[in-house]
Amino acid sequence: MARKKLLRKRPHRKIGAPPGTLVHVGEPSQEPITFDVVAYDAEHFSEVTFGIGEVERCCGFGKTRTVSWININGIHEVAHIKTMGDCFGLHPLVLEDILNSDHRPKLDDYDDYLFLVLKIPFYEKEGGFRVEQVSLILGPNFVLSFQEKSGAVFKGIRDRLRSGKVRGRAMGADYLAYALIDVVVDRYFTALENIGDDIEELEQALFASPDTDTLESIHNFKHEMIQLRKSVWPLRELIGSLQRGDSKLVGETTRVFLRDVYDHTIQVVETVETFRDIISGMLDLYLSGISYRTNEVMKVLTITATIFIPLTFLAGIYGMNFEYMPELKWHWGYFGLLGLMLILAVGMLVFFRIKRWF
Amino acid sequence: MARKKLLRKRPHRKIGAPPGTLVHVGEPSQEPITFDVVAYDAEHFSEVTFGIGEVERCCGFGKTRTVSWININGIHEVAHIKTMGDCFGLHPLVLEDILNSDHRPKLDDYDDYLFLVLKIPFYEKEGGFRVEQVSLILGPNFVLSFQEKSGAVFKGIRDRLRSGKVRGRAMGADYLAYALIDVVVDRYFTALENIGDDIEELEQALFASPDTDTLESIHNFKHEMIQLRKSVWPLRELIGSLQRGDSKLVGETTRVFLRDVYDHTIQVVETVETFRDIISGMLDLYLSGISYRTNEVMKVLTITATIFIPLTFLAGIYGMNFEYMPELKWHWGYFGLLGLMLILAVGMLVFFRIKRWF
Amino acid sequence: MARKKLLRKRPHRKIGAPPGTLVHVGEPSQEPITFDVVAYDAEHFSEVTFGIGEVERCCGFGKTRTVSWININGIHEVAHIKTMGDCFGLHPLVLEDILNSDHRPKLDDYDDYLFLVLKIPFYEKEGGFRVEQVSLILGPNFVLSFQEKSGAVFKGIRDRLRSGKVRGRAMGADYLAYALIDVVVDRYFTALENIGDDIEELEQALFASPDTDTLESIHNFKHEMIQLRKSVWPLRELIGSLQRGDSKLVGETTRVFLRDVYDHTIQVVETVETFRDIISGMLDLYLSGISYRTNEVMKVLTITATIFIPLTFLAGIYGMNFEYMPELKWHWGYFGLLGLMLILAVGMLVFFRIKRWF
Amino acid sequence: MARKKLLRKRPHRKIGAPPGTLVHVGEPSQEPITFDVVAYDAEHFSEVTFGIGEVERCCGFGKTRTVSWININGIHEVAHIKTMGDCFGLHPLVLEDILNSDHRPKLDDYDDYLFLVLKIPFYEKEGGFRVEQVSLILGPNFVLSFQEKSGAVFKGIRDRLRSGKVRGRAMGADYLAYALIDVVVDRYFTALENIGDDIEELEQALFASPDTDTLESIHNFKHEMIQLRKSVWPLRELIGSLQRGDSKLVGETTRVFLRDVYDHTIQVVETVETFRDIISGMLDLYLSGISYRTNEVMKVLTITATIFIPLTFLAGIYGMNFEYMPELKWHWGYFGLLGLMLILAVGMLVFFRIKRWF
Amino acid sequence: MARKKLLRKRPHRKIGAPPGTLVHVGEPSQEPITFDVVAYDAEHFSEVTFGIGEVERCCGFGKTRTVSWININGIHEVAHIKTMGDCFGLHPLVLEDILNSDHRPKLDDYDDYLFLVLKIPFYEKEGGFRVEQVSLILGPNFVLSFQEKSGAVFKGIRDRLRSGKVRGRAMGADYLAYALIDVVVDRYFTALENIGDDIEELEQALFASPDTDTLESIHNFKHEMIQLRKSVWPLRELIGSLQRGDSKLVGETTRVFLRDVYDHTIQVVETVETFRDIISGMLDLYLSGISYRTNEVMKVLTITATIFIPLTFLAGIYGMNFEYMPELKWHWGYFGLLGLMLILAVGMLVFFRIKRWF
Repeated sequence: MARKKLLRKRPHRKIGAPPGTLVHVGEPSQEPITFDVVAYDAEHFSEVTFGIGEVERCCGFGKTRTVSWININGIHEVAHIKTMGDCFGLHPLVLEDILNSDHRPKLDDYDDYLFLVLKIPFYEKEGGFRVEQVSLILGPNFVLSFQEKSGAVFKGIRDRLRSGKVRGRAMGADYLAYALIDVVVDRYFTALENIGDDIEELEQALFASPDTDTLESIHNFKHEMIQLRKSVWPLRELIGSLQRGDSKLVGETTRVFLRDVYDHTIQVVETVETFRDIISGMLDLYLSGISYRTNEVMKVLTITATIFIPLTFLAGIYGMNFEYMPELKWHWGYFGLLGLMLILAVGMLVFFRIKRWF
Repeated sequence: MARKKLLRKRPHRKIGAPPGTLVHVGEPSQEPITFDVVAYDAEHFSEVTFGIGEVERCCGFGKTRTVSWININGIHEVAHIKTMGDCFGLHPLVLEDILNSDHRPKLDDYDDYLFLVLKIPFYEKEGGFRVEQVSLILGPNFVLSFQEKSGAVFKGIRDRLRSGKVRGRAMGADYLAYALIDVVVDRYFTALENIGDDIEELEQALFASPDTDTLESIHNFKHEMIQLRKSVWPLRELIGSLQRGDSKLVGETTRVFLRDVYDHTIQVVETVETFRDIISGMLDLYLSGISYRTNEVMKVLTITATIFIPLTFLAGIYGMNFEYMPELKWHWGYFGLLGLMLILAVGMLVFFRIKRWF
Repeated sequence: MARKKLLRKRPHRKIGAPPGTLVHVGEPSQEPITFDVVAYDAEHFSEVTFGIGEVERCCGFGKTRTVSWININGIHEVAHIKTMGDCFGLHPLVLEDILNSDHRPKLDDYDDYLFLVLKIPFYEKEGGFRVEQVSLILGPNFVLSFQEKSGAVFKGIRDRLRSGKVRGRAMGADYLAYALIDVVVDRYFTALENIGDDIEELEQALFASPDTDTLESIHNFKHEMIQLRKSVWPLRELIGSLQRGDSKLVGETTRVFLRDVYDHTIQVVETVETFRDIISGMLDLYLSGISYRTNEVMKVLTITATIFIPLTFLAGIYGMNFEYMPELKWHWGYFGLLGLMLILAVGMLVFFRIKRWF
Repeated sequence: MARKKLLRKRPHRKIGAPPGTLVHVGEPSQEPITFDVVAYDAEHFSEVTFGIGEVERCCGFGKTRTVSWININGIHEVAHIKTMGDCFGLHPLVLEDILNSDHRPKLDDYDDYLFLVLKIPFYEKEGGFRVEQVSLILGPNFVLSFQEKSGAVFKGIRDRLRSGKVRGRAMGADYLAYALIDVVVDRYFTALENIGDDIEELEQALFASPDTDTLESIHNFKHEMIQLRKSVWPLRELIGSLQRGDSKLVGETTRVFLRDVYDHTIQVVETVETFRDIISGMLDLYLSGISYRTNEVMKVLTITATIFIPLTFLAGIYGMNFEYMPELKWHWGYFGLLGLMLILAVGMLVFFRIKRWF
Repeated sequence: MARKKLLRKRPHRKIGAPPGTLVHVGEPSQEPITFDVVAYDAEHFSEVTFGIGEVERCCGFGKTRTVSWININGIHEVAHIKTMGDCFGLHPLVLEDILNSDHRPKLDDYDDYLFLVLKIPFYEKEGGFRVEQVSLILGPNFVLSFQEKSGAVFKGIRDRLRSGKVRGRAMGADYLAYALIDVVVDRYFTALENIGDDIEELEQALFASPDTDTLESIHNFKHEMIQLRKSVWPLRELIGSLQRGDSKLVGETTRVFLRDVYDHTIQVVETVETFRDIISGMLDLYLSGISYRTNEVMKVLTITATIFIPLTFLAGIYGMNFEYMPELKWHWGYFGLLGLMLILAVGMLVFFRIKRWF
């Protein structure tokens, strides 16, 4: 459940371990580990996929002239990650963070390469909201992307590169990194649209028939928004930092494109904040709606009771068994009383009408 | 409906496409596409409108000595936009943003030209609040304005230029851009005034007869304010940036005028924030008002019940059929009891009066 | 009504007009237009008041050696303002802002002169809160002050200058401008004191007998605070900017005095924020108080009903007309039942007492 | 009452007076005015107290080699303050602020001397919260401290100086000023502790038996916190500014100690904010608690009414006087009905039990 | 109890004492005071524990070539702390802060050494949340760590150093300080996880059966979050400052590791803020839930009363004893009335069903 994830941040077995200890943190995927390698420049394009025992064959790709992109599917095998780290000269803390799938989005500049942690959001109506982690290494002419399960997200980019018609082929590794980030940001739009649909549905339920399920849904949406927000804000910050050109690994041309994706993250952030506003307003609406309903219920009760209780009292009076009750003997006593009761009842109704109770 | 728009940001068919792909996003207008070209300087003024097949004839206007203003009505034809982009040397991302009518307001400085995205607000009592997008390109001696439907908004400026008596004719393209922005900002005042009227009406309804419709209206206003706010804040920011003179395309003289329009946007922002405050306060008022009403209803019920239930009990006592009930034989039993009941009832009323319940 | 003003910002006939169009915006005063001119230095002092047709005679006063202060009462005559603008070399936008009596406080530095827009607050128990606009022009040796109605506010300064004993006479135009600003800020203290008294009264009403009038008063105070705040924050900002010495027209000596008046504006801002806090807390108090009262009312109803409904039921039982009801024949049946009823009633009371319901 | 003070900021007779007018603002103390003078260096220590007519004798102490500390008790005599101002070369605005006992804490740097306004808080359970004002002048080798009533607060420092064993004797006037500030900050801890005790008491009352008194107490605490906050935030700011060494009158060594007292003010600020949080949470708790209680009361009423009203109806049926009512003749009619009633009542109780209403 | 601690900040006997007075503030531990000394470099490692009388023997360790770490368990003996201070040249204010176990986290840079105050959090379901204070001194080649009770927290580091296989042995004192800080930050993760579990439990209780205990739990969690927040924010700030390299005592290599622990503190801060959000939302949920329940209870009451009160009235009518009541003689009067009653009751039920009350 979504809520569960929200409250857990760092798993037990990591706490207390010395810094730089390589332990995979997260649920391992069931699919086989693969290494998809793509190497290209404006004229050339080659593609190969290595299996679980062929990690070392990736190493050479960092020193070629072409741009190399190595996409690592499955990070739960610590030894592979360590090998990659040795080949590409990565800091132990980088490897530790790649393995920890519960990290917050961030950008670390290690001069020779940039290290990015991103979150890909998935939202399903039933399963709620969850995020998958992608780690990117951007070197001078290579990009490494690490994820446990969600490799398919980047399939579109590989297809585009292969087709050879796109701008990207002639540009460097920084443009490739931009393209990957762009795909990740696009996933947020998809997730937000689905969430938006569900919020609208909830809004309709709120006005139609609010009950405790509505309340629980609002509560769950609130949780999901908190979680989404925690991925989005640092994402925006890190793309902003890339776009401002704090690192020499990102060229001027790519920065124009990063400004575009930065605009998109601002839009994502605004939408998340808008949703938060709406959801938080729904709780107030719920409370106000319930209060209004209680008021309506009260009015029905009060009108009924205020009309009939005095009448019943009158009937009770003449149901008493005193020996000397002169009215009981009167011939028109009964009908007179009925008339009086009618007048009283109508008077009450008029009174409530004037008070605009119905 | 206003709410629908709020929750949708980026349409499906764009997500996943490579950056720079030119696709129109938004609902196409039914009116024919036209290109209104105006060229002027202090002494001269010429005006021509091209039809759908004459796009290329606009191209020359970027290289004249006079100031040229090309107003493109209808942006859903991708090919035309592409042609314009080629003529005036616009970046593919600029074209992409012009075509996407769901973009947030922004200012991008491409050195040779400035690219501005603005939102024109329209508010109608029935239809709620919606925005139309205008994209401006400010070059050294030309201004391009792109919109789908709302070209009429700029008619006044064309009339003024034609009349030849205004300051604007002797000034450059930057002053023209300022004039367009000024018109856009003026639309916000119009929209806010209409919204203000409706809020006042709602306030009166709130105090007179609050019901679930009031609640839904408050909710809708809240949505509209969120949406309005999302157009206004970036607008203020971008005019602020223009006015500070970050770009060499905006001259010193025009900047004084931009400071004036910047003041106006601050006023718009303040009004929007004021409305938000008022609307958010209305929900609290609604809840407090309903609680007060419930309390009033409760009092009526409680007074009625507290007076008559004990009396009915007494009547019930003497309606019992026990064989030995001495009071029933007393000659003044009946009237004595009626007297006692009267005393009880009056006592209760005095008690409630002291408690200030009525 | 105060609320009306809050929701209107820019009047219809101005929207759409070209920038720099001179139109008076606001309600014209009924009093005659006058121009109070004071010229002084440490030794000299002269004073003259020009009527409606003598505007041009003011023009010379900008070029004298003495400090000149021209106080313009009544700004609804556009031609006069235009003449003043021509004499003292004011920018068209300045004149536009002087004429627009709905402008927010601001400070514009036009190098040769400073342009200040200030708001003088007036608060009356009946009429609520309203502001009058004063525009100041501070030149090298002259000060122009424009207002529609509230010229009397500055009378004290004229008297002090005439008396000749004050520091001000020997100092320049900047000190005069400071003195005018100081008077404006003092008005805020007066207004806040009066509002403070009314808030206290409202607080007492809140605890004594909260009703819908209280609610409406809280709502109105909230509106007034929003409005007051909108005048005060920019005022503080502009005095802060003057005091930091961003302009060469303000001398070092005067800046010490401006620091003092800046302290006062901080105090005003703090008081406004405090009032906002208090008023916003009052709505919560109102709601809590009403809920408490509803609870009390409920208790009275519940105690009455819970005691008498079962007893009435018992009485009803023995009011039934079954032929075979043995208890009815018992000699002590009636008194036994009365005893039982008494025990039940007392038991209930003890139960409610234990529950601390009364 | 605490609330009164909160809403008054600047007294009537000051408003409108020309700047620099010396008028005492505040309630004068009944105790005689005294001037406690202490002069010391590492080896020497002398102490003398001047009476009301001996002001001029203080003047020499600003020019001695030793550090001089003149503590002025009672500031309501304007003439004395004026004399002090002349002796020590103070700006008229400084004297005005010393006399105005309603000033907010601030630090003004007049190059030759620093002017500090501080607030000493006093909290008593009965009387609520109030503050006394202390003004400090820190010159190169002298410190002046002005207050109306609370001179005893600094007694401990005089004792320590006299004893001669403390660090302070060998250090300059800046260390003495630090020691005075430290004492003032310590008073905040004392006040907060007492307030903390009262808040805890209130919390217990809130859970035990919330009533309108609780509500009023919460309201009063809120007021007091607002007031306390208004003294504390500027205090922190001014000590921060002293500690950063913006003035040459404060030496490097003393600055280390000021950093310590700055830490203390942060702690005070945090505690005040914590209290604000807690108090604001208490209002929510109150409202929730009352709602819960109302719900409980409702349940009791509903259970009683829902059980007995139908039964009473049944009894009413058989109390009717129709000639032909066959059940009335049945021998077991009465007991059968009683049985039916019992079954109904038990059924209802089971129903409510399942609904977990009791 | 947690709440108690929150409201107390500085104990009585310290207030008023001159600055730099050495007094232990806090509850002394019962365990014996020990001094654990570890000295190491890449090749060597030695370890010794001194008892209560051997303080002076620690002094030499500040001047060795190896890195020395002296862990002081038990700080309530003022004399020992004073001795340590003399040996290592610590400022009196540092010693005062070490002894005051109620200090807020901070970092003071004394050029020759850094002084850090940290808080170790402990959370137990029963006992609530509490913090222990650790003070660190980081010198050029030594680290001193002072705490009253929680020395065991650092045991893991000692073990790692002894094993000799870790990175730390070859690095300087700054890396050791980093390792200690890392352990402290890890404790926050543990505490937050436990709190998270309890919050989840509370959430379930909130939806299942909200009562006043739930309310009190929410209130307590709120207090704990306030307290936790007060430790975490300054912690983040101080690690941020260390990581930015404001001090020359922290080397470049260690700073990379500090960036990692800084990331962790951000995660801690985010989790704390998330918990605050959730807890504050729970109060709203509680109130909404109670209101919903009240509404449900009201409906049951209203349905029962609205159906049976009119019927009882009808029965009362025919229970009257008027002599002339023609209906009573009718043969089918009784059954006719019963039929009418049934129709009325069913009508009511249909009405309530349409209104969706059940």
